[in-house]
Amino acid sequence: MPDKKIDPIRPTDDEARALARSLIAEARYAALAVTDPETGTPMVTRIALVPGSDGIPLSLISTLSSHTHALAASAACSLLIGEPGPKGDPLTHPRLTLQAISERADKASLKEHYLSLYPKAQLYYDFGDFQLTRFTPMGGLLNGGFGKAFKLTPGDIVA
Amino acid sequence: MPDKKIDPIRPTDDEARALARSLIAEARYAALAVTDPETGTPMVTRIALVPGSDGIPLSLISTLSSHTHALAASAACSLLIGEPGPKGDPLTHPRLTLQAISERADKASLKEHYLSLYPKAQLYYDFGDFQLTRFTPMGGLLNGGFGKAFKLTPGDIVA
Repeated sequence: MPDKKIDPIRPTDDEARALARSLIAEARYAALAVTDPETGTPMVTRIALVPGSDGIPLSLISTLSSHTHALAASAACSLLIGEPGPKGDPLTHPRLTLQAISERADKASLKEHYLSLYPKAQLYYDFGDFQLTRFTPMGGLLNGGFGKAFKLTPGDIVA
Repeated sequence: MPDKKIDPIRPTDDEARALARSLIAEARYAALAVTDPETGTPMVTRIALVPGSDGIPLSLISTLSSHTHALAASAACSLLIGEPGPKGDPLTHPRLTLQAISERADKASLKEHYLSLYPKAQLYYDFGDFQLTRFTPMGGLLNGGFGKAFKLTPGDIVA
């Protein structure tokens, strides 16, 4: 069988932008990749996620967690957003990889917004060892299934 | 409210080892974190996953994908395994972070094993632009829900 060397990236269109934004809008958790400050190697964990009112993802994370220590050492990180349903090949389900920079967000002023989208966090939102973190996208890779990949700019992802 | 500075890591027990192994045994996809060779920053994408007969995760990945290029430049990577169900707080669902080293596996000899666990890959298993990759664990972080975290050695994860 011949190997066809084709570029798997398609030109970004409005449908791709809309899909990326809807994946962020609907996500309530994500995989977060950081660089382990001890080894310099990648480390991926699960975090809660809600969209900010500006579309930029927010997460309430524990200051005791390894990812919080890693983000304090290096704010460059990546999020995987968009979870497969129970049926079908998981690789055909749309997902979005964000390359992002993390920074601390204002926990008090965003409390009502966060809890309106993630009510279960009411139990621990005010704990002193949880902080609110904002993930500003620097770029993205949208995969809408086999052969449907798009490279996204920050402007494609956030209005 | 006082901040309690406690170590969130519990001593590893047989129940934790069994949970980690069952998460690997049951996973059919995972989040893969690699280091982007262009930027040196983390990047996380979704891959298919099956356990090898030795319990070491295997994945059929496209050589056209960005993660394959990244693994060729740096084999150190991380996998997040264990997906939340449709109900409950996703952060209470058990998941396993592996720190791993990727290497090419023998696609032909493992075909029957792989397809027995991931029959949908029959459609593209033999394509020349797919390779089989093995992820040998170097360590792990098991999160069984709030307050139930364990640091795992390779021997805890793979028999």
